[in-house]
Amino acid sequence: MARLADAALGGLAGRKELFLQELLAYCRQPSVAATGEGMEAMAGLVSRTLERLGAEVEWWHGPGAFPVIYGRLERGAPVTLLFYNHYDVQPPEPLERWTSPPFEPRLAGDRLHARGVADDKGALLARLHAVELLQQVAGGIPVNVIFLVEGGEEVGSPGLGRLLSAHRRQLQADGCLWEGGEIGAHGRLEVEAGCKGMLYVELVVRGPREDLHSSLAGLAPNPVWHLLEALRTLYDPGSGRILVDGFYDRVRPPSPEELSLVDAYPLDEGALAQAWGLVELESRRQGRTAPRALFVEPTCNVSGIFAGYAGPGSKTVLPSEARARVDFRLVPNQSASDCLRKLEHHLARRGFRDVRVVDGGSEDPGQSPLDHPLVERVAAAARETYGVDPILKPRSAGTGPAALFVDTLGLPVVNGPGVAYHGSGPHAPDEHIRLGDYWRGIEHVVRLLAGFDAEDGLLKGRPQ
Amino acid sequence: MARLADAALGGLAGRKELFLQELLAYCRQPSVAATGEGMEAMAGLVSRTLERLGAEVEWWHGPGAFPVIYGRLERGAPVTLLFYNHYDVQPPEPLERWTSPPFEPRLAGDRLHARGVADDKGALLARLHAVELLQQVAGGIPVNVIFLVEGGEEVGSPGLGRLLSAHRRQLQADGCLWEGGEIGAHGRLEVEAGCKGMLYVELVVRGPREDLHSSLAGLAPNPVWHLLEALRTLYDPGSGRILVDGFYDRVRPPSPEELSLVDAYPLDEGALAQAWGLVELESRRQGRTAPRALFVEPTCNVSGIFAGYAGPGSKTVLPSEARARVDFRLVPNQSASDCLRKLEHHLARRGFRDVRVVDGGSEDPGQSPLDHPLVERVAAAARETYGVDPILKPRSAGTGPAALFVDTLGLPVVNGPGVAYHGSGPHAPDEHIRLGDYWRGIEHVVRLLAGFDAEDGLLKGRPQ
Repeated sequence: MARLADAALGGLAGRKELFLQELLAYCRQPSVAATGEGMEAMAGLVSRTLERLGAEVEWWHGPGAFPVIYGRLERGAPVTLLFYNHYDVQPPEPLERWTSPPFEPRLAGDRLHARGVADDKGALLARLHAVELLQQVAGGIPVNVIFLVEGGEEVGSPGLGRLLSAHRRQLQADGCLWEGGEIGAHGRLEVEAGCKGMLYVELVVRGPREDLHSSLAGLAPNPVWHLLEALRTLYDPGSGRILVDGFYDRVRPPSPEELSLVDAYPLDEGALAQAWGLVELESRRQGRTAPRALFVEPTCNVSGIFAGYAGPGSKTVLPSEARARVDFRLVPNQSASDCLRKLEHHLARRGFRDVRVVDGGSEDPGQSPLDHPLVERVAAAARETYGVDPILKPRSAGTGPAALFVDTLGLPVVNGPGVAYHGSGPHAPDEHIRLGDYWRGIEHVVRLLAGFDAEDGLLKGRPQ
Repeated sequence: MARLADAALGGLAGRKELFLQELLAYCRQPSVAATGEGMEAMAGLVSRTLERLGAEVEWWHGPGAFPVIYGRLERGAPVTLLFYNHYDVQPPEPLERWTSPPFEPRLAGDRLHARGVADDKGALLARLHAVELLQQVAGGIPVNVIFLVEGGEEVGSPGLGRLLSAHRRQLQADGCLWEGGEIGAHGRLEVEAGCKGMLYVELVVRGPREDLHSSLAGLAPNPVWHLLEALRTLYDPGSGRILVDGFYDRVRPPSPEELSLVDAYPLDEGALAQAWGLVELESRRQGRTAPRALFVEPTCNVSGIFAGYAGPGSKTVLPSEARARVDFRLVPNQSASDCLRKLEHHLARRGFRDVRVVDGGSEDPGQSPLDHPLVERVAAAARETYGVDPILKPRSAGTGPAALFVDTLGLPVVNGPGVAYHGSGPHAPDEHIRLGDYWRGIEHVVRLLAGFDAEDGLLKGRPQ
């Protein structure tokens, strides 16, 4: 109801300073899952905000995982929405590339710089602030709301699946709002109904017990050559095809609706190439369209390779070990475990039995139907908020634990209400958001929640 | 003359403590060319030892190089011998792999541990001590002696060629004793008349301006794939052949004499494979003999490769740059500059114009005739010292600036009088020598120098 939203938003101006101070406090608290720094304190901050809103809060603990914060606002309403977010951030390194320290938030004009402000503390807090406005100014929210805020998203959400299964009953809902969206380079908010999956492995080849003097290269095998031989059987950079035997077997061809969304996606290839300092995009060279390469096809990428001496000056060694980290982004209906098995068989069949494959944290793709009414609800609230249609696409090119919510909990997953934009640089130095996007992100969630009538079901108007 | 040698060596027992103390002082002084640590102080130590022996000492300075110490002991003799050594050492890293600090020499039984004691401070000082014994105990040396002690051997001897050219007249001699030999795994001293050369390059491929999120792998080219494509055109690990166009064109086939020496070289392949933790040697897999692979053939080795994220945990990036360090060991009559040109042409011809080739310090192979009388002089003195024939081989599998002495100065180069053994671990943690080898190294040089008669020329008995 527009009246409810307008009432709530009438209270925003007077609370901006307070909300900003809370965002700064969130950003000041380090919470690096990869190292464990500040994780407990950050979980405490989230927990206290939820309690302030009157939520019933639980800390869920799993082996090898940081606490998952569960907060429930029960209104006895017919509709329950689940917000999935995370309170952990990427490691801030390389520190020397930051203009100011990553955990000392800095306001430069409209831009707020801090590690995690775009991914995902800003989106999380904007959602909490939206609920706060509705409750305190407009007198309540017309739906039940669950916040599920985990601490391991940036390290592959270890143990999350088990916790979701164990607490399945407490997580019953009508839909899941994914962690947060962004304004694309085209200037419009992006709304998605899923994520690609990922198989992330390290390939390890052992050579001699210790590094040898490289004059012995005629005598001892260099593990780098063997690793390179193995890698080149996995991917053909010329065609962009993944060569792992059977890798595409289970790929579900995109539906006509998915394809039409993807093909309509406004991606300025020239601008992207220029921004990245490239002559042309890879997809162009391979005769693909960029949006299909991004959203429809699986990828194979070397995210790290290392062997031997990397220090300054020269050192002539025959390395005792060579390692490559390879990530494959997966599309529906591939599964990470099936692709891992195929990779292992592929290597073994070609005589690479000595190439050890270490699973470094993998996730299945998670996809919801594009015609689910929650998608239209998010889009409608975006139209009202931004004054322009959002861009709808089937899924994010990135990866998150969406499959757990789709497959384990049976929830539709929709991404959209967020505070980032295409220049936010999540995971990178000088991560930031624009404050204007922050206030609009709050407005978007207010309008989404206020759009539900207490009498309504989520499915009203949905073709049955 | 055996009498002269015996007289000199009669004074060794009484001086062992003093000589050992001086060796410890040399080892205590860091002198790392790669970082510059302690270089000036080390040059001073060498300089003072030479002055104590009555040498006329000069410090030669070249741009970008540490001082070269020149010391001349002029006796008006018909024969002049030049000793080439270096006072710099390899970086001591990784420090955690040392049993005791690298610059705090530690005597454990007969073993003296310290960075540089095997390469090359022990060999240098053994030579200086041999001269001291002859002068102070036996009344003089029957030849003129030049010490040329540089400070950049471990970083490719930058600027040395120019200094040798500029001081050509002061370096006139009948032969050059190379920096120092070792007792092989077969238990006999190795005598060599040259070194392999080396082309050391870094191949650099640029991708996007900054690391990208790896979900963009379908859009932006990953420089790792391109680097791998380039590397696999350089070398065939299956056959051991270098595939660079024309790489073998200038290789001089080994002479029958060289081949017979190489084929007679006692190399226990099983023991080597076991020591290195390998199932079998590379050469075996390729149907080569190990000694030919080691001494006769050029090699192509990746001594380092790095791109993307190498830290703990996972980080999914599309790297902005990929680098590989490749060393090619060269045999007569290849030249490093010719091989560099061939490598560049090879890559350009195959469409790898964007693979930047950075020359990281290269040296030509340097080979002297095996029938030069200085070779037999060194071997004869070794027989007397060790009571067993030394092993003669055409060249070291390793690289040093021998070509400068052979080609620029026209000197025969012979390696042999040294203090290391096959287990010394030069360049590695816990580098050490056996003290027994140290005293015998001194004896070897005493016998070599004393073997010259004041009336003799070096060439006596050489076929003209």
